[in-house]
Amino acid sequence: MTKLLLATRNAKKLVELDRIMVAADVHGVEVIGLDAVAPFPEAPETAPDFEGNALAKARDAVAATGLPAVADDSGLTVDALNGMPGVLSARWSGRHGDDLANLQLVLAQLGDVPDDRRGAAFVSAAALVLPDGTEVVVRGEWRGALIRESRGANGFGYDPIFVPEGGTRTSAEMAPAEKDAQSHRGRALRLLLPHITAALT
Amino acid sequence: MTKLLLATRNAKKLVELDRIMVAADVHGVEVIGLDAVAPFPEAPETAPDFEGNALAKARDAVAATGLPAVADDSGLTVDALNGMPGVLSARWSGRHGDDLANLQLVLAQLGDVPDDRRGAAFVSAAALVLPDGTEVVVRGEWRGALIRESRGANGFGYDPIFVPEGGTRTSAEMAPAEKDAQSHRGRALRLLLPHITAALT
Repeated sequence: MTKLLLATRNAKKLVELDRIMVAADVHGVEVIGLDAVAPFPEAPETAPDFEGNALAKARDAVAATGLPAVADDSGLTVDALNGMPGVLSARWSGRHGDDLANLQLVLAQLGDVPDDRRGAAFVSAAALVLPDGTEVVVRGEWRGALIRESRGANGFGYDPIFVPEGGTRTSAEMAPAEKDAQSHRGRALRLLLPHITAALT
Repeated sequence: MTKLLLATRNAKKLVELDRIMVAADVHGVEVIGLDAVAPFPEAPETAPDFEGNALAKARDAVAATGLPAVADDSGLTVDALNGMPGVLSARWSGRHGDDLANLQLVLAQLGDVPDDRRGAAFVSAAALVLPDGTEVVVRGEWRGALIRESRGANGFGYDPIFVPEGGTRTSAEMAPAEKDAQSHRGRALRLLLPHITAALT
């Protein structure tokens, strides 16, 4: 069976990526994580866009392992912050990976922003890179609005303050399968599936 | 002599505005600060752009005092942050007016941003509002780049990390008159001068 490496070091993101791949039920492909391969150094995420970072992460994984790899770069784009935190979502407060500090900073920055200007979108770029150099990168978006206080314990990152368009609950109040069916990451990975199937099965 | 109110509650900004007005040597106009008029409540800065906030501050001052008023709204627009902190410059860290926390947050957010993508501009919108309802708003910009550590003790806000285009020193390392001759606030106020002269002298 052909192996496909999910090239993320974020444990919660790995859970989501793996869950979406399992739900997609791609036959003939064995999805593995970075824990199943020899360790390799993590490159800094310095691209100015999600697509560039997703491609860089997948390329590094292919170069280090020789396996086909999928990587995601994602974040929250806030209208009142001109689309930021964007590619800086995981280190917005200056403390990389501190979800609570990052979320609280966005809430503080939007403290005086009225309800009708609190639009936002989760964005995910998902890249597939093959050992032969083939590269595909796609983008999924999930529009919504930011509330003023955290609600819900599922998900991660900015999920507790994000209410998707047409909904009333935050993405942290949704069941995993319900989130995946709508989310930026679910959309991006499903856009990538035909390319994965065509390349690996 | 006609009075003109400089409607700012920021002491360091008042010093700069007053200095620029004094240097412009407008005859027949007496420039006064908010300390010379009866106190009135401060409206929140909720406009999405500098111009809107400058106009709102000047309008509030005219409504409260009956005097012609000039107000400024200004901030730092960082290319790698899609033009933010922008109108949120004074409260970027969530702590309004904490210059050091705001500056340190921008430095942390730009930690991985390479030297060739650290462009930024100081922007000032300056508004003149008259008791008869006449309104003029202008914009001054000052392009430069952000360094990685603070330098200099003059100025305020983000001055210690801003090196203007064509220069090597930060705007916090410049003498006051040298800064005023180039700065966003100097440019904006000088654009406003003909309107002040026409209206008040």
